[in-house]
Amino acid sequence: MRKHLKADEWSIIEEGFNPENQRSSESIFSIGNGKMGQRANFEETYSGSSLQGSYVAGVYFPDKTRVGWWKNGYPEYFAKIINSANWIGIRVFANDEELDLNHCQVDDFVRILNMKVGTLTRKFTVTLPSGNKLQIESIRFVSMADNEIGVIKYSVSPVNFSGKISFFPYLDGDVENEDSNYDEKFWNILESNSNNGEAELLTQTKKLDFRVAFHMLYSLQIDNANVIAKPELISTSTLSGNKAILPVNKAQTATIYKYVGVCSNLNYKNQELIKEAKKQSGIALSKGFDHLLEAHKNVWKKKWETSDIQIEGDIEAQQGIRFNIFQLNQTYTGDDDRLNVGPKGFTGEKYGGVTYWDTEAYCIPFFLSTAPSNVTKQLLIYRYKHLQKAIENAQKLGFKDGAALYPMVTINGEECHNEWEITFEEIHRNGAIAFAIHNYIRHTGDEQYLVDYGLEVLIGIARFWSQRITWSGEKQKFVMLGVTGPNEYENNVNNNWYTNKIATWCLKFTLESIKKVKQLNKTKYDSLAEKITFDYEVETTRWNQIIDKMHFPFNEKLNVFLQQDGFMDKEQLMASDIDLSQRPINQHWSWDRILRSCFIKQADTLQGFYLFENEFDNDTIKKHFNFYEPRTVHESSLSPCVHSILASKIGDTQKAYKLYLRTSRLDLDDYNNEVHEGLHITSMAGTWMSIVEGFGGKRVYDGKLSLNPIIPDKWSLYSFKMQFQGKNIDVKVTKQSVVITSLSSSQLYLNIYGKTFLLKSNDTLVVEK
Amino acid sequence: MRKHLKADEWSIIEEGFNPENQRSSESIFSIGNGKMGQRANFEETYSGSSLQGSYVAGVYFPDKTRVGWWKNGYPEYFAKIINSANWIGIRVFANDEELDLNHCQVDDFVRILNMKVGTLTRKFTVTLPSGNKLQIESIRFVSMADNEIGVIKYSVSPVNFSGKISFFPYLDGDVENEDSNYDEKFWNILESNSNNGEAELLTQTKKLDFRVAFHMLYSLQIDNANVIAKPELISTSTLSGNKAILPVNKAQTATIYKYVGVCSNLNYKNQELIKEAKKQSGIALSKGFDHLLEAHKNVWKKKWETSDIQIEGDIEAQQGIRFNIFQLNQTYTGDDDRLNVGPKGFTGEKYGGVTYWDTEAYCIPFFLSTAPSNVTKQLLIYRYKHLQKAIENAQKLGFKDGAALYPMVTINGEECHNEWEITFEEIHRNGAIAFAIHNYIRHTGDEQYLVDYGLEVLIGIARFWSQRITWSGEKQKFVMLGVTGPNEYENNVNNNWYTNKIATWCLKFTLESIKKVKQLNKTKYDSLAEKITFDYEVETTRWNQIIDKMHFPFNEKLNVFLQQDGFMDKEQLMASDIDLSQRPINQHWSWDRILRSCFIKQADTLQGFYLFENEFDNDTIKKHFNFYEPRTVHESSLSPCVHSILASKIGDTQKAYKLYLRTSRLDLDDYNNEVHEGLHITSMAGTWMSIVEGFGGKRVYDGKLSLNPIIPDKWSLYSFKMQFQGKNIDVKVTKQSVVITSLSSSQLYLNIYGKTFLLKSNDTLVVEK
Repeated sequence: MRKHLKADEWSIIEEGFNPENQRSSESIFSIGNGKMGQRANFEETYSGSSLQGSYVAGVYFPDKTRVGWWKNGYPEYFAKIINSANWIGIRVFANDEELDLNHCQVDDFVRILNMKVGTLTRKFTVTLPSGNKLQIESIRFVSMADNEIGVIKYSVSPVNFSGKISFFPYLDGDVENEDSNYDEKFWNILESNSNNGEAELLTQTKKLDFRVAFHMLYSLQIDNANVIAKPELISTSTLSGNKAILPVNKAQTATIYKYVGVCSNLNYKNQELIKEAKKQSGIALSKGFDHLLEAHKNVWKKKWETSDIQIEGDIEAQQGIRFNIFQLNQTYTGDDDRLNVGPKGFTGEKYGGVTYWDTEAYCIPFFLSTAPSNVTKQLLIYRYKHLQKAIENAQKLGFKDGAALYPMVTINGEECHNEWEITFEEIHRNGAIAFAIHNYIRHTGDEQYLVDYGLEVLIGIARFWSQRITWSGEKQKFVMLGVTGPNEYENNVNNNWYTNKIATWCLKFTLESIKKVKQLNKTKYDSLAEKITFDYEVETTRWNQIIDKMHFPFNEKLNVFLQQDGFMDKEQLMASDIDLSQRPINQHWSWDRILRSCFIKQADTLQGFYLFENEFDNDTIKKHFNFYEPRTVHESSLSPCVHSILASKIGDTQKAYKLYLRTSRLDLDDYNNEVHEGLHITSMAGTWMSIVEGFGGKRVYDGKLSLNPIIPDKWSLYSFKMQFQGKNIDVKVTKQSVVITSLSSSQLYLNIYGKTFLLKSNDTLVVEK
Repeated sequence: MRKHLKADEWSIIEEGFNPENQRSSESIFSIGNGKMGQRANFEETYSGSSLQGSYVAGVYFPDKTRVGWWKNGYPEYFAKIINSANWIGIRVFANDEELDLNHCQVDDFVRILNMKVGTLTRKFTVTLPSGNKLQIESIRFVSMADNEIGVIKYSVSPVNFSGKISFFPYLDGDVENEDSNYDEKFWNILESNSNNGEAELLTQTKKLDFRVAFHMLYSLQIDNANVIAKPELISTSTLSGNKAILPVNKAQTATIYKYVGVCSNLNYKNQELIKEAKKQSGIALSKGFDHLLEAHKNVWKKKWETSDIQIEGDIEAQQGIRFNIFQLNQTYTGDDDRLNVGPKGFTGEKYGGVTYWDTEAYCIPFFLSTAPSNVTKQLLIYRYKHLQKAIENAQKLGFKDGAALYPMVTINGEECHNEWEITFEEIHRNGAIAFAIHNYIRHTGDEQYLVDYGLEVLIGIARFWSQRITWSGEKQKFVMLGVTGPNEYENNVNNNWYTNKIATWCLKFTLESIKKVKQLNKTKYDSLAEKITFDYEVETTRWNQIIDKMHFPFNEKLNVFLQQDGFMDKEQLMASDIDLSQRPINQHWSWDRILRSCFIKQADTLQGFYLFENEFDNDTIKKHFNFYEPRTVHESSLSPCVHSILASKIGDTQKAYKLYLRTSRLDLDDYNNEVHEGLHITSMAGTWMSIVEGFGGKRVYDGKLSLNPIIPDKWSLYSFKMQFQGKNIDVKVTKQSVVITSLSSSQLYLNIYGKTFLLKSNDTLVVEK
């Protein structure tokens, strides 16, 4: 844990420059707009330790699989969203002496991420080795309004001398990924040209022919007056730029505005890429910095109107939750069904920017409540479009007849994971994808989705479970052998309760969905059944048999469902029994010791109680929470949130708040000493869930919204915006009351503390506690 | 499967040159002497596909671990016996045209491995691109008598021209391993010099500072008359040699004798290495080829006198078993307790030449019966010397108080394996190491070994089991969770019957051994107990509790022990149910499909019945054999032999023979299409076991030798030599009788078909069937 940031409601503020924090700050101060993202690398040369990171959504490299021991069925590659050309670069010289914070004295350094408006600024004074002092101020953003444009304003003021200030804005394609499996570089540079006032770069991935064009324009000012300087043109095979020299007197300010267009062949033809990038930078230059910023701010304003959470009485919590919401919104905007949410978003290389079940389990609940329904729909369509690949994936594992197994990690639908106990066995992910369809429909009411897309996916998933589940002659029950549940501290177990649970739920939900689609559009149903040769009688008969006779490990004495067969054969210890010097156990214990222990990495059985809470009474939930939570070490960033929600549910506010604290500032305070690798983007959605579903008690059953708010002791008020079936509301919770304000022109029935209320359009409802 | 070799009793013969077979033949025709080994690479330049392989026993490289996903506890490196400098090289030129079988027409090619005397010869005629024809004959061996010497005689006869024949004998250190994890080369060349008639090379591994010196001398002849040619001296930074040109007329023969000394710093000081290598090549040159060969042959003669198996009526079986015995004897000679038997011996890179439990389970039974007892003792001492590392290995996994876990694979005692389900969980290997001590003592009667070395190892192993086994409150039994049995087609299972069985056996044997050592030498016992802080009362109390209350999975209905908990939850199919197009399943099925199936890779429960046969009656063994064998796909080379032995035991001669056939010519006929990677050296010992323990029914219980021979239909006679408690016997089995001849000067009681006989010294015993 490191606390080097200043608390603030709307900003992340770092004061003082410490090279040791640079990589961490590069992650935390990342900016993005859903289409591209940029770590907080410096514009000027920095020779200290840094992880250069500039990512273009959807542009990936199939990095050849690296394993110790090959297992049949492993994929050939791991697809990675890769570090793209450096477009932010501006080398800065004062009288030919280059600015490099690694070789200067730096004073009054402050770095600010303004989350309200989505800008990154830096201000500092440096003393160069020569003794020359400069004041620097930079501000940059990647535009939410014009999402192929990146903008930088960079100002330099000589403090104690007059002389030449040179700006050397450039585009550099000679970049690498630190996580390359075989130390390869991933890019070819097809074009690299510079002209007076501009430069361009056309880059191509060495495999798959992704192309990204960058075009840069810039303008110069001295003391806010435009100036023109004939630049030196620089272009090598991988880098292009201009070097412009300005005569600047002491206390004057030289400023460069750098405008970059970034276009990829996901959206344009190859031959038009450079032209399109040039068009974007042209638009940017002509609109100008202030105008672009204004439009960018407006988009953020709208995002906050539907997604903000306010907390009073706890400024760190306030900052934490806004940071999470901000990062989620700049990672995914829902404009493109080929994109998804990587565990680290655009903030680092780890996990390669691929899609995990995190999206369905954590991000979708967030986007369903905070963004228009089409945002979530795009995430569902993403999986719909991968259905064929999921069927092929299942075939590779020996399944047939249209059974679909969605990959553990993917970009394009193909499995990229290569760890057998996860790749082949952590199959509960298939359930999360089905559940997301259910979740989407209950939130939006969009049943047509089932007709158009959903049912086909559900049948593929149901077919998989139907084949993966086998009959045990011994138990006279259906069983599911050799799986890994969400708790990855157990591998290759039999009858993981959660997986068995969500699998049978999938079968039930698919049966209901078939019925629903038959009602809604019999013709569409018939043509789907024909397309996928669905034999209703034969297939659903087996599904019903499984639903009737599935084995759920249960301990009679304890009266709890067991995480898996044989769980009680383990030595039963509590997480609190572990010596603190041994925590986290994943950094102190060998893997087999972890596996042999009863300790749980993240919610597993309880993940099922979270999803299927309505099937159990409060006592049962409490009993299971009290059995499993003390055995849980929460060594996944995705763990505390689910537990916090359940703790809120069973009325244990203290515990709920304690667990909430473990997730809310995970990255800001770098709990796990790993933020330099990137932010935990998907788990940020879990933090949001802890508040809205946990403290707020938000639930949706049978198409009805209910709330059951509690409030942590420390807080005097919290409020959250949310959207439900197209209606926006604002929920304010204080110690005394719950105040719900409609922000929509239509009414809404909702349940608060078990009672039904009608919230009229644009009205406010006050419920005293 | 490929059948390209000619059947012969004593030789392996390849007729005709097919480049596609080259890598396979390079494995099959390998030669070695326990101290070094050499694949059958050509002496002359060969630009076709080839795996250069020259190995010096004990010289390894710690190749940095390569994994996809790191698990705590993985080792930093995989130690590999590496490809060393090429010392066999002789470039050959005819009138400056280089001989390269990849660019010539090759006729009448024949390659012969003479197993009786341990030589590799080649004869062939080539037509060079120019049309010039040559007859070539080469013969080489690595001397069993002078084990730091390699010798080559290479003759060239121009067939249709007269002119210059040039020999360019050299030593080349610029070699690589194909299996290098990071495409690194492993050698530095410290010295490379050539002089008139000689060359030398001093090589150093890039890590660990192993050094190997090579020194070469040579002599030349034309038509058997010595000639001298002033050579061109060649030495680069990595290669040294001489190029000698001889004027040779049509039908004359030019011959080079190349003598190479190979010395490593395992045996000499660094500064003396070159000198020692030079000494060896000097000895070789002065003794001369014929003399060296004679001494080499004599060693082989003695080896065959104690280890040969003769089979009449089945020449392929005869060739197969002699090939196996030959390879085992040239891989390990028992001179050095730092060496062991790699799964591929000196015949390829796969598995890196490291030690597996194969040594204890397969090779030790072979060496115990065919070689003086000190050979096996060296293999035991090897593990004894690694005890401290085994204790450290266990510590890394969280065990304490002197618990020892021997590594899955090792060279120097450190674990090198990096696959969690094997590295951390295939712990039955610890049992094999304990069993080998038992096996050694019952064969040799050397109880003093327990006092000097054995007991300390046994207590370390017993302590491991004692900690690894835990109490199940649920079962009210001791259990062992999260293990992988010998059947690696199941991973991370609970209560693998074999592992539980051998673990409790280890505890019992250690208790007995403590008693024995106390009797033999109480002082030694006391000082050992003090050295390892052994608390007899406390520790053995728990051991006895475990022995009393260990859980052994058992199915009441079937009346069989189950391979592991939950085995009967699996879909119960037979190997014969698998479509032949899907065999072997490890080449056709994804890993999870294999794991989910009930199919067994190699003997697992039956491995226990093999080891502990005396604890079960024949019906029980039969029942278990009939339950497990049909579920076994025998996709380990180590599988059929154990099954064959058990089939013989239960009187199923047909089955025993069928299973024997799967192992006997595994490499010669390349059943698994992988012999190019090297030979299955350790499983060769299994083939030997199939005959001697299977058909021959050899057993040792309570220090008594018994035989119970059967004979396969196809055979008219088989005989095997064996050694027992220092006495050598020859056993001949025909359809009618068993004839046992004593080759020793002391008498021996032995049991044949259940009756005790006294075999007098140098006498013959005939038992009619």
